[in-house]
Amino acid sequence: MAEPVFERLALVGAGLIGSSIARIARARGDIARVVVVNARTEKTLGRIAELGIADVCEIDPVRAVEGADCVVLCAPVGAYASLAAAIGPHLAPGAIITDVGSTKQSVIRDVGPHVPQGVHFVPGHPMAGTEFSGPDAGFSELFEGRWCLLTPPVGTDAAAVQRIKAFWERCGATVSIMDPEHHDRVVAIVSHLPHLIAFTICGTADDLADETRKEVLQFAASGFRDFTRIAASDPVMWRDVFLNNREALLEMLARFTEDAQAMARAVRWGDASYIEDKVMRGRKIRQALIDINQA
Amino acid sequence: MAEPVFERLALVGAGLIGSSIARIARARGDIARVVVVNARTEKTLGRIAELGIADVCEIDPVRAVEGADCVVLCAPVGAYASLAAAIGPHLAPGAIITDVGSTKQSVIRDVGPHVPQGVHFVPGHPMAGTEFSGPDAGFSELFEGRWCLLTPPVGTDAAAVQRIKAFWERCGATVSIMDPEHHDRVVAIVSHLPHLIAFTICGTADDLADETRKEVLQFAASGFRDFTRIAASDPVMWRDVFLNNREALLEMLARFTEDAQAMARAVRWGDASYIEDKVMRGRKIRQALIDINQA
Repeated sequence: MAEPVFERLALVGAGLIGSSIARIARARGDIARVVVVNARTEKTLGRIAELGIADVCEIDPVRAVEGADCVVLCAPVGAYASLAAAIGPHLAPGAIITDVGSTKQSVIRDVGPHVPQGVHFVPGHPMAGTEFSGPDAGFSELFEGRWCLLTPPVGTDAAAVQRIKAFWERCGATVSIMDPEHHDRVVAIVSHLPHLIAFTICGTADDLADETRKEVLQFAASGFRDFTRIAASDPVMWRDVFLNNREALLEMLARFTEDAQAMARAVRWGDASYIEDKVMRGRKIRQALIDINQA
Repeated sequence: MAEPVFERLALVGAGLIGSSIARIARARGDIARVVVVNARTEKTLGRIAELGIADVCEIDPVRAVEGADCVVLCAPVGAYASLAAAIGPHLAPGAIITDVGSTKQSVIRDVGPHVPQGVHFVPGHPMAGTEFSGPDAGFSELFEGRWCLLTPPVGTDAAAVQRIKAFWERCGATVSIMDPEHHDRVVAIVSHLPHLIAFTICGTADDLADETRKEVLQFAASGFRDFTRIAASDPVMWRDVFLNNREALLEMLARFTEDAQAMARAVRWGDASYIEDKVMRGRKIRQALIDINQA
C-alpha cells in the first residue's frame, strides 16, 4: 500500500461529504494514518462513532484540528467564517486547510484571513452530491469519476496543492485547478441556478389551489419529477450557497429570466420559428454532453 | 385471447407514440385485428414497414382512415386542424376518433368541428414519453404504469369512451377522465413549464462566452445535466404544445417568474429564512411524491 497522504486528517463536519471522505479513508488506508471527525452535534458525532468510520470523534472543533496536518472544512459554507476564526490559531505549522464548499470566492474571503503564516490554504470543491444529507447519506463511491475543482490563491505552496490533489485522486475524483471567480460563475450556471429554479417551481406548484396540487403530484412524471429530485437537497447547505455566490447567481438568473421572457413573448405572439430554434439548441447541448460522455 | 378492442385501427403519425402503439398492437393481438399506419413521409413509413409493426402502411391519411373503427391522431398537435379537415369527411359512421396530444382544449377546438355526425370524438393524452423521437424510438412498454387522461366533451357516447379506456388499459396505462381546461392547467405546471424552463436554461448556457460554455458541458453533472435530458425532446412537438396551451403556460410561467424574482430579492438582501423556507418546500414536495410512489 502507498504511504498515506496525511498523518492526521481532521474532517470538520460529518454530513454527506464529510462522512463519505471518512468512509473512503477507512476503506483505503492510504488517505491518512489517523482520521479525526468533528460534528456540530453530539447526535451526528455519535452516529459517526456507531458507523466506525473515524479513529477519533471530537465535538470541539479546536481540539479536532490540533496536530492535524490536513483540515477539511465539510460544513455548510455559511459556517466557515466562525469556524475558521475558532480553529485558525490552533492549526499546526505546515498544515494544510482545505474545504468542500460549492462557492470559492466567499470561502477565500471568510477563511483566508484566519489562516496563520506557515499554514497552507487550498480551497476545493468536489462536484459530487446526492439529494440526501447527513452522516448516513455518505458512501465511499461518491467522488468516483467526478470532478474536484481546486482554487488556490496566487502564491499557494505548490507542494500543498499537490497533496490535496493526491488526496482527491485517491478519493476517486479528477482534479482541475481554476480561478475562484471563474469557478463561481461556472457553478452558478451549471449547479446553483438549476437548484434555484427547481426549488422555485416546487413552491409555485405548491401554491396552486388544493385540487390542482394533488394532481400535480399525481401526474408529476412528465418533467416536474426531475425537478423535485434536484429540489430535495439540504436546505441549510443551499441557503448558504445562494447567499455566498450572490453576484454570479443573480447574474445568471437575470440572463435566464430575460431568455424566459423572450420565450414567453414568442409563445404569446405565436413565433413558431423562435420556439423551435430554442428547443433545437436544448437538443444540441444534450448531444454535446453525450459526445463528451457527461450525459 | 380477449376479442380485439377494434376491428381496424388507423394510427395517423408514426413517431415515438404512434410506433409504440403499433408495437403493442402487434405484440398483444387484442388491440385491433388490422393496424393501419400512416406517416407524413415515405421515409418514416418505410421504416415502419421494415420494422414489421403494421398490417397496412398508407401514405395518404384519407385512405388510411377509410373503414377504420378507430382513428388515433399521433402527429404534433399543430398538424391536427388540417389533418382533421382532410380526414373528417372520410371517417366511417360509428367510428371513434381520438388523439395523443399534450394539449386538450386546442385539440377540441381544432378537431371537433371536423368530426361528422355519428362519429365519436374522445380526446386523449397518454402521459408518457422519452427524450427520443421517431419510429425507432417507440417501445412496447412505453405506457406501462403511466396515466392516460381522457377529456371527452360533454355528451360524448359513453360506450365510445369505454372502448378508448379499454384500449389504453391494454396498452398498460391507467385511465382518468378530466375536464379539458383543468387538464391544460395541470399539464402546464407538471410538464409544459418544466420543459420551457429546460429549453431556456440550455439557451442561456449556450449564450455564455466560449470558455465558460465549454466548462458548462464539462461540469454539467451537478444539476444542469438533468435539465438537458428534458430539453432533448422533439422540437416540432414542443413548439406545437407551447403554442396550443398558450394561456395556461403563460399563466404558470408568470407565477414561476414572480416566485423566482422573490427568490432573487431574498438572495440579494440576504433573507436567509426566506430561502431556507423555499428549499424546505421543495423537499416536502419531493417527499410527497415518494409517499405516493411517483418519485
